[in-house]
Amino acid sequence: MSERDFQVPQAAVCPLGLLASKIEGTIDGASVDLLVTGAAPLQDALAGEVSLVDNEKYLNKLLASPATAFIVPQSFPVVESRVLIRVKNPHAAFIQAIEIFRPQRKSFVGGIHPQACVEASAKLGHDCWVGPGATIGADVVIGDRTRIHSGVHVQAGSRIGSDCELMPGVVLYENTIIEDRVLIHAGAILGAHGFGYKLVQGRHCRTAQLGWVHVESDVEIGAGCTIDRGTYGATRIGEGTKIDNQVQIAHNVRIGKHNLICAQVGIAGSCSTGNYVVLAGQVGMKDHIHLADGVVVGAQAGLMSDAAPGQVLLGSPAINQKEQMQIFALQMRLPEMRKQLKQLQATLDQLQSAQRNSQALSAGDAA
Amino acid sequence: MSERDFQVPQAAVCPLGLLASKIEGTIDGASVDLLVTGAAPLQDALAGEVSLVDNEKYLNKLLASPATAFIVPQSFPVVESRVLIRVKNPHAAFIQAIEIFRPQRKSFVGGIHPQACVEASAKLGHDCWVGPGATIGADVVIGDRTRIHSGVHVQAGSRIGSDCELMPGVVLYENTIIEDRVLIHAGAILGAHGFGYKLVQGRHCRTAQLGWVHVESDVEIGAGCTIDRGTYGATRIGEGTKIDNQVQIAHNVRIGKHNLICAQVGIAGSCSTGNYVVLAGQVGMKDHIHLADGVVVGAQAGLMSDAAPGQVLLGSPAINQKEQMQIFALQMRLPEMRKQLKQLQATLDQLQSAQRNSQALSAGDAA
Amino acid sequence: MSERDFQVPQAAVCPLGLLASKIEGTIDGASVDLLVTGAAPLQDALAGEVSLVDNEKYLNKLLASPATAFIVPQSFPVVESRVLIRVKNPHAAFIQAIEIFRPQRKSFVGGIHPQACVEASAKLGHDCWVGPGATIGADVVIGDRTRIHSGVHVQAGSRIGSDCELMPGVVLYENTIIEDRVLIHAGAILGAHGFGYKLVQGRHCRTAQLGWVHVESDVEIGAGCTIDRGTYGATRIGEGTKIDNQVQIAHNVRIGKHNLICAQVGIAGSCSTGNYVVLAGQVGMKDHIHLADGVVVGAQAGLMSDAAPGQVLLGSPAINQKEQMQIFALQMRLPEMRKQLKQLQATLDQLQSAQRNSQALSAGDAA
Repeated sequence: MSERDFQVPQAAVCPLGLLASKIEGTIDGASVDLLVTGAAPLQDALAGEVSLVDNEKYLNKLLASPATAFIVPQSFPVVESRVLIRVKNPHAAFIQAIEIFRPQRKSFVGGIHPQACVEASAKLGHDCWVGPGATIGADVVIGDRTRIHSGVHVQAGSRIGSDCELMPGVVLYENTIIEDRVLIHAGAILGAHGFGYKLVQGRHCRTAQLGWVHVESDVEIGAGCTIDRGTYGATRIGEGTKIDNQVQIAHNVRIGKHNLICAQVGIAGSCSTGNYVVLAGQVGMKDHIHLADGVVVGAQAGLMSDAAPGQVLLGSPAINQKEQMQIFALQMRLPEMRKQLKQLQATLDQLQSAQRNSQALSAGDAA
Repeated sequence: MSERDFQVPQAAVCPLGLLASKIEGTIDGASVDLLVTGAAPLQDALAGEVSLVDNEKYLNKLLASPATAFIVPQSFPVVESRVLIRVKNPHAAFIQAIEIFRPQRKSFVGGIHPQACVEASAKLGHDCWVGPGATIGADVVIGDRTRIHSGVHVQAGSRIGSDCELMPGVVLYENTIIEDRVLIHAGAILGAHGFGYKLVQGRHCRTAQLGWVHVESDVEIGAGCTIDRGTYGATRIGEGTKIDNQVQIAHNVRIGKHNLICAQVGIAGSCSTGNYVVLAGQVGMKDHIHLADGVVVGAQAGLMSDAAPGQVLLGSPAINQKEQMQIFALQMRLPEMRKQLKQLQATLDQLQSAQRNSQALSAGDAA
Repeated sequence: MSERDFQVPQAAVCPLGLLASKIEGTIDGASVDLLVTGAAPLQDALAGEVSLVDNEKYLNKLLASPATAFIVPQSFPVVESRVLIRVKNPHAAFIQAIEIFRPQRKSFVGGIHPQACVEASAKLGHDCWVGPGATIGADVVIGDRTRIHSGVHVQAGSRIGSDCELMPGVVLYENTIIEDRVLIHAGAILGAHGFGYKLVQGRHCRTAQLGWVHVESDVEIGAGCTIDRGTYGATRIGEGTKIDNQVQIAHNVRIGKHNLICAQVGIAGSCSTGNYVVLAGQVGMKDHIHLADGVVVGAQAGLMSDAAPGQVLLGSPAINQKEQMQIFALQMRLPEMRKQLKQLQATLDQLQSAQRNSQALSAGDAA
């Protein structure tokens, strides 16, 4: 393939005047007939394309860009020999521009694809879509307008609400509950067995794993996440919580509402979080601990105990961010502290020896 | 969907007397005709349902629960106005109760689904099950009663024993060996290339990756795990070892028998472990190191060298837990140590200056 | 199944003379008619098989092995009662031997499998292969000789070059660009939404995620990796870069050419790397930082800021390896430093009290 073949196709060519009117902008420096061929961010934009410069501190980057026009804030300075489109909200306008040139694809034609495999006892709502290679087990119930992509496997007894989207390769084990407007990215797996074993005569025997996963409304779950079922009841993800890629959530965990859980976080069994908790990337949580409302945890932290509302935690083992920052700084000074200790020791030895001499002298005097 | 739609369906209603006789319990405080509608853990149980209270220290939670009956140990105190079912083993009895109300689903009807794709040269044992969308490559051999779920891909030359279960989306690369009674959770990938390259004229060239993965009997592998093939021979997982979700095991690794490997652990190439080794969550192991029998490693530890039998390790880089706990504690005292150093310095300066004065004085005296 | 059933089948029996001539070696200690039944690494090789001993320091292991013959370097000493095949390059010769006994399987018969699902508007090059259960969306373009394994999902608008291989279960979201000779291992997911939200009236609202993923030529991506699309444009992986399993790369990241990124690394949004950067296992990178050409980062490090060309970094938070190693060593000596501090304090207290006594004495003298 040639170089040009590896470009995302732009769907249309648009005269500058039409573009400006669609994004409610005013043109500064060019004719309305100039043809624009695409929209791309500043570091990628080619000649012919429109780009975005949201702040005048990037003026140099604008001047270095081959792009044909730039969407800028109203207050942007005039730039000689460059075409600007001044708008109220540059990001919203640029998003509109992208959607003109590269409209979002509709992969949904509605209905159940002939290569999908839906059990007779499953009930689907209106305007559902089930892609090729997807399997829907017995007694599954799915709400209206929910889109099940190709290669998704929904096991028996699961219930999915309305306006959900399950991307390719998602797996829901039996009895998984998904409420409304939930988006699950490709390869996420909900409902595998919790990691619980009992040692019997030298062999690890699996304990009962009879529960399920319950995801409340407006949750988003990232690609490759794994959320295990509860032991007897539900592992639960609260309303509005957003989970990034490759997060692991163990059995019986209860995540509160509107949490943000970044990539590669691992949460051990029976943990719980309040509302508006934020966990940065690669955080680990020991089992059976609780983070209260509004707790914020820094990247790679290792949580070993409960946290009070609003606490900001850092480090492994994690403590308050303020103290941890101080300790990180002092660790950097350990070589200096070591040196200081040696000098103190030397000075002290010297003093002691001087004192001994002077005592010996005094003793001599006395004698 | 209404609120009630997002409940896991309970399969049956059961009179209390029948329930008690099935779980071999004695009823305390109610008629045998009382109808029970489900079984749920204490934090979830609704009116009508039976729950579990395994210890009298949870008496307050019992009193606060709307559940209709509670499975308790024989020795539990009498609770006025609450229905108790006294049993010998409360957890075993509660598991039985759950299975009465929510019997495990049978997703296996036996046979090869018409939408599965099985090569003519593959040999399947008796009572195997191959789900829709699964693919079984050339020369694959599968033992009796093994269940291959929908969307599993078993590449050519692989051999799977009897009574195994491969959950949806599992991928076995060519020549993978799986012994008997192995359970592999959804999305696990066995046999991808090891990460080995040689720099030739500025480009990373892949070294030979000609081996396979060999999983011994009674192993369980969690969702989303990746286990790479050996370079020339096998990457091997020993009998009875249990692996949690999202664990990464590199090429040529040899895991011993009856290990427990928790979620998100990463084991680099050519490592080996003895028997009964335990790795907690997010542990990392440097390549080519060996952990002897019974080694236990704490969460997020980074292992840089071999470990002797029974060692308990912690931290990154990991050392003996006892020393590491002391060092963690002393890190917390670094601000105090820093302050103490400054005070020592000040006191010493003062002493020195006093000494100098007294020497000057003595010198004065002498003069 | 019997023990012997769990062996990877060896395809052929080969007389020693024929084997030696194929790998260009000379036989030392046996007849050319001796039959060899397979090739296996030293720790696995059985009687009848040929193995590899690349260095005479492993002589004891050779003597303890039941293997029938050993591929060794030209300079290897004579070993009584053992059959050696002396060759110029033992590893290359052993690879050839493995391929004689266990030739690589061809899973590609060419063409589009009848159980694949390819949209009418997709364009495939010559000699492409699309496996059963794979789905190819509208307007997808695929180059010559590219192999799409079973259960791969390529969404609409994606473009894949020539000589690529996508292993089972790979998912490409819409508009993903893959150049030539790219290998993507099973379960990798390219193009899911970036993790970007804006808090509006107490709810996290997803920001625009309109971009795509662009993978340049000769890249390899490990099993279970996730690479998110850019916000407006591309998340980009540079030519020749190799990525191990379970790596997470967030939106707008730009990875340079010929990087090596080990397993379970997490790279946050808008990071960039130069060429020939190496990230060891489980490294985490804060968003918006840049690593210049040739930077090397140790396992489990946490990068919080930019790095200059060739820097070697370690620890969390990461600093120069040399300083970090010194600090790790001093942390181990914290108990000793603490003890030393106490002793200094005690000695100083003693000195002060001695001084006070001597002053009191002097004062007495003076009086």
